[in-house]
Amino acid sequence: MDSKDVKEHIFFSEEKMQKNALFDSPHLFYDTYCLLPGQSQKVHAHEGSDKVYYVLEGTGRFTVSDEEQDLTQGHAVIARAGESHGVRNESGENLVLLVTMAPRPS
Amino acid sequence: MDSKDVKEHIFFSEEKMQKNALFDSPHLFYDTYCLLPGQSQKVHAHEGSDKVYYVLEGTGRFTVSDEEQDLTQGHAVIARAGESHGVRNESGENLVLLVTMAPRPS
Repeated sequence: MDSKDVKEHIFFSEEKMQKNALFDSPHLFYDTYCLLPGQSQKVHAHEGSDKVYYVLEGTGRFTVSDEEQDLTQGHAVIARAGESHGVRNESGENLVLLVTMAPRPS
Repeated sequence: MDSKDVKEHIFFSEEKMQKNALFDSPHLFYDTYCLLPGQSQKVHAHEGSDKVYYVLEGTGRFTVSDEEQDLTQGHAVIARAGESHGVRNESGENLVLLVTMAPRPS
């Protein structure tokens, strides 16, 4: 059975936001994104894929289209195909996200 | 911004496992599944979609193909397209799962 203890897949990099793969298939990516204070994922868009962020730990400042919102542990947000999106860790604490992208971009 | 406080989408039913929709698109379903002790999702398969279960609370007994495993809070498991899968709450505590299915079955 392909199961994962997600807390064993939480790794940060001093250099930039760290993505850690949990599952990868033609239908989806399922990752943790780990952001130290001050790190970010630049605003971007995927024409054919949706992305859902779920906050496992900390507080993220999310951008979707022209909206910006701080989301704390236990909140989820969707960026639908074509919507610009990104996230910044403007807090003083580490930020850990559980991220699904579907379908896997080709 | 289409964001959700996931804990506000945790509802149980005495009758059967309760699914609560968070996000729904052509690319994915993103739901909570809430199981009281003794409740289950019968083993089944989707020919064209993957499903990922993430345990938010409690302990689930998961079946994927011919394997069975108990997974606790913070663990995730994937059932790939065509693999039979299901989950039972054999514990004495409530079970809450964050579930992604991609793509949304047609």
